[in-house]
Amino acid sequence: MYQEILNEIYNEVNSLDCLGKQADYIPELAKISSDKFAINLTELSGNNYGVGDITDKFSLQSIAKVFAFTLAYRLKGSAVFQHVGVEPSGDPFNSLIQLEQEQGMPRNPLINAGALAICDVLIDELADPEHDLFDFIKKIARNDAVTYNSKVYRSEKNTGFRNRALVNLMKSFGRINNDTEAVLDLYFKLCSVEMTAPELSKTFLVYANHGKIPETQEQILTNSQTKRLNAIMQTCGFYDEAGEFTFRVGLPGKSGVGGGIAAIHPGKYAVAVWSPMLNPKGNSVKGMKALELLTTKLGWSIF
Amino acid sequence: MYQEILNEIYNEVNSLDCLGKQADYIPELAKISSDKFAINLTELSGNNYGVGDITDKFSLQSIAKVFAFTLAYRLKGSAVFQHVGVEPSGDPFNSLIQLEQEQGMPRNPLINAGALAICDVLIDELADPEHDLFDFIKKIARNDAVTYNSKVYRSEKNTGFRNRALVNLMKSFGRINNDTEAVLDLYFKLCSVEMTAPELSKTFLVYANHGKIPETQEQILTNSQTKRLNAIMQTCGFYDEAGEFTFRVGLPGKSGVGGGIAAIHPGKYAVAVWSPMLNPKGNSVKGMKALELLTTKLGWSIF
Amino acid sequence: MYQEILNEIYNEVNSLDCLGKQADYIPELAKISSDKFAINLTELSGNNYGVGDITDKFSLQSIAKVFAFTLAYRLKGSAVFQHVGVEPSGDPFNSLIQLEQEQGMPRNPLINAGALAICDVLIDELADPEHDLFDFIKKIARNDAVTYNSKVYRSEKNTGFRNRALVNLMKSFGRINNDTEAVLDLYFKLCSVEMTAPELSKTFLVYANHGKIPETQEQILTNSQTKRLNAIMQTCGFYDEAGEFTFRVGLPGKSGVGGGIAAIHPGKYAVAVWSPMLNPKGNSVKGMKALELLTTKLGWSIF
Amino acid sequence: MYQEILNEIYNEVNSLDCLGKQADYIPELAKISSDKFAINLTELSGNNYGVGDITDKFSLQSIAKVFAFTLAYRLKGSAVFQHVGVEPSGDPFNSLIQLEQEQGMPRNPLINAGALAICDVLIDELADPEHDLFDFIKKIARNDAVTYNSKVYRSEKNTGFRNRALVNLMKSFGRINNDTEAVLDLYFKLCSVEMTAPELSKTFLVYANHGKIPETQEQILTNSQTKRLNAIMQTCGFYDEAGEFTFRVGLPGKSGVGGGIAAIHPGKYAVAVWSPMLNPKGNSVKGMKALELLTTKLGWSIF
Repeated sequence: MYQEILNEIYNEVNSLDCLGKQADYIPELAKISSDKFAINLTELSGNNYGVGDITDKFSLQSIAKVFAFTLAYRLKGSAVFQHVGVEPSGDPFNSLIQLEQEQGMPRNPLINAGALAICDVLIDELADPEHDLFDFIKKIARNDAVTYNSKVYRSEKNTGFRNRALVNLMKSFGRINNDTEAVLDLYFKLCSVEMTAPELSKTFLVYANHGKIPETQEQILTNSQTKRLNAIMQTCGFYDEAGEFTFRVGLPGKSGVGGGIAAIHPGKYAVAVWSPMLNPKGNSVKGMKALELLTTKLGWSIF
Repeated sequence: MYQEILNEIYNEVNSLDCLGKQADYIPELAKISSDKFAINLTELSGNNYGVGDITDKFSLQSIAKVFAFTLAYRLKGSAVFQHVGVEPSGDPFNSLIQLEQEQGMPRNPLINAGALAICDVLIDELADPEHDLFDFIKKIARNDAVTYNSKVYRSEKNTGFRNRALVNLMKSFGRINNDTEAVLDLYFKLCSVEMTAPELSKTFLVYANHGKIPETQEQILTNSQTKRLNAIMQTCGFYDEAGEFTFRVGLPGKSGVGGGIAAIHPGKYAVAVWSPMLNPKGNSVKGMKALELLTTKLGWSIF
Repeated sequence: MYQEILNEIYNEVNSLDCLGKQADYIPELAKISSDKFAINLTELSGNNYGVGDITDKFSLQSIAKVFAFTLAYRLKGSAVFQHVGVEPSGDPFNSLIQLEQEQGMPRNPLINAGALAICDVLIDELADPEHDLFDFIKKIARNDAVTYNSKVYRSEKNTGFRNRALVNLMKSFGRINNDTEAVLDLYFKLCSVEMTAPELSKTFLVYANHGKIPETQEQILTNSQTKRLNAIMQTCGFYDEAGEFTFRVGLPGKSGVGGGIAAIHPGKYAVAVWSPMLNPKGNSVKGMKALELLTTKLGWSIF
Repeated sequence: MYQEILNEIYNEVNSLDCLGKQADYIPELAKISSDKFAINLTELSGNNYGVGDITDKFSLQSIAKVFAFTLAYRLKGSAVFQHVGVEPSGDPFNSLIQLEQEQGMPRNPLINAGALAICDVLIDELADPEHDLFDFIKKIARNDAVTYNSKVYRSEKNTGFRNRALVNLMKSFGRINNDTEAVLDLYFKLCSVEMTAPELSKTFLVYANHGKIPETQEQILTNSQTKRLNAIMQTCGFYDEAGEFTFRVGLPGKSGVGGGIAAIHPGKYAVAVWSPMLNPKGNSVKGMKALELLTTKLGWSIF
């Protein structure tokens, strides 16, 4: 059934006139072919259904912030919320205005400022931050080959002036313990992680499975922590379009400016979509449409 | 089982040192005894479970915005979103800043500006706006005795300068068709609606039941519209604390400065809590705690 | 000499391609012929020099705020600064954002919010506010015929939703003592005062003459108060373009959306210009250009 | 006469209970003795009058921004205003909010963002930026010994996270051509320039003398440019307290968080005051009081 529905959605979305614009502020991302499109759904059982460019790796960008936060939450428990809040920002993902008004405390871990604060926490907590963070991502991905794209990483490092502004602003409020360039370096590597759509939906199964890795039932986050992280994704996962996504799709998820979106239906499945054409809010146009059709056709949203 | 859990929660919450402060900007509300506390849960089947001050009526305040929006959505369909958005505001419920920056378009129907815009829509659409709106509330409440408290109404009307500022600001952007005092009058009557906790949870069953009134299966909103309204409640129902509520409780709901909160578990139940002591964000302290314990003890949230 | 210079300026400015747009948010003002243009300079001695449409009356609009503030300062002394500040706003003249952030305290008496607060002060202080305020304006104008245009007044009263928003927002912060409609009524009458360019420059002589009416040497404000009011005009007299005016013209002054500007050179002269075409900041394009040429040709600015 | 007045002012101000707080965000500045106090006035003729700690050097901080802007204005003419505006900011000196809202264009050259943009211009324009800028300062100071304090410079360089945020934010808007650390380096050296009060007032004579160095009549800026720079100082020289300074003192000037203020009366004199205790806006409490008394006692302000 799922395969048929995905095929239908793929054709339906591809037949639409699809406005949108690729991210151009990261030069390396602007080179991707704009008509790439993939949808992949993985059930908790492990059954997998995909259509389109499902063997292409794409840059996870902000989606990877979920992994960094998962590790920090696992390590620090609720003390992690001394570093980031849980409220939607109501502002673009990289705005400094709110951050200045709120004395450098990021609204949530899924905006840039929040993910930078989380990278700072990880540098405090981990013996070998880059190695340990990537080991953790490999573990929840059940995939030892996960790595970042070094061209994208260098491209972001050379042009990431706004992220540099964010981390220095937080540092000026005493909210960053480590060297700002070290924090940025870990952040840029994190954002440059690449996966295919099937790899991404497989990785997100842990959030659909109450915090446990399906095959091994290893508990990565507690049931309660997982619900709370899913709640954060629901209200904060789509920049200043979280309401629109919740309204149209009705599932917790996270998008990235690489054009990917990962979402989950707790207890059922994880789904990953990818198309690099973005709407003005920075979310994949085809990706949002595909997920809206998915929950409409399945008749399932969490609401 | 429910009754036992509600009793437990009632005792547990009442034993906590409960900080908080009653709303004082509406003089009439400041007179309510601060230790009032009620919890009431109604299953889709109609089974009802309550504890505490469940025979006291309280002022619904912002909770009633849900009813006005429901009627406007029913009348206009998705055209209602030409008048209000679906995004969380990230700002206090009555802030003018965002409204000015966004040319008078309210972020969502559940903040004051949005509810004022919805009242303006209702005046456009209804033959006898006050009568027709209250008839609609009576219908979904299945209770012909629903009315507003005229002292609270007059108290708000005499002191509602900020709401007057909001509606005039929207009018200056051409976003209000009717006389501003007529819009305010309907709005203040709406906010002054009173119910007991059992009456409120019964009224909210329609949102837990895919848009149908349980007894009659009359469709008030379509299944899809109901999901979308629930999604709006999830992301926008708690002023600038929607993330916190989603994080801690994990159910769609709506709070009011009268100290009430109504929430639903789609397909299962509606719940209403009431305690007038508010946190600095304007949400009931005991109410939020009670609902957090409820989803913890039941092990059910939507995430 | 002055007459020749004014003639030169008049021709030079009239020969420029003059972009700009008439105020259209006050319907009555939109009806004025857009090519009206007058320049008039009055020396302290009373010698008067004018060119262009100097027999036409125009709507003073925000220029008249100076008169209301002069009277309030005269009546209350420095206690008037409990009601308004002395800082430039950095924002458009009718913005609510700053007013909300600063708890309803207007930045200065020459933005709309500040003039509304001053009208509230005058209602507190005067036995017959409208009568007494107009008597005062007549006195400093040495002109018993000064009055307001009742069509403009009604036009503003019917469309002044943003000013209604401002005064209600201040009232919500407890900063307005009187009925908001009474405050607005006095404000709209004040803004609707009409004068010709020679009448206006004659009225402004008091500010160029250390607070004394030239003919009678009657002290309206003390020398020190006059300097301070002139300082406020310098930093706050041109909405969010006060820096530009100070930079280009270098004299204290005040503009209005009717297209008038009045300015003074302390100890020398007062000057009034009028042309209804406004730049995007709400200041007269020809008026600013004429005054820039005046201080360039005279070689005098205060700097 | 001047000496007597300065002595009077010195005693009067020193006898006041003087609230205020030293700048502590630059650790090196926090070490200065808080009761230091100097006043020095230099006439265009070169006659000099001083009282208090007039042989102590102090850190010019933001006062030195005037010199960098003077050089950039001299080199680029009005093209310099493609890099900075001329409007007061209405916000604290180091705020990022306005800078973000206005796409990285600083409001004026005397706030931090503006001075950073000017340093970027100087790096573009000068063969050996640091050497050439300091040569220029020595020239207008007529003092070959002018230099910066290397401890203050390093202290700022190590802690200047907010300035780092500002320059990176501007860079993200494409408004900085050079390496951000190079821009910051020049900026921190500029801010660390030290002078005594007599040295500072002598340096500011050029602004009181229509742009010419008094002894040699060498034209540094044209008469018109000098008026315009003075106008910028008047409206923008005191962070978000420019109105207050204009209101109380009525002279163009510039303050710094080192506790210094320099001001001028065009055609008459320059004056420098220094006392490290600052008010919450970052301006010297005793310095502002001393200058207010000066223009009151002399009966001269520009208004």
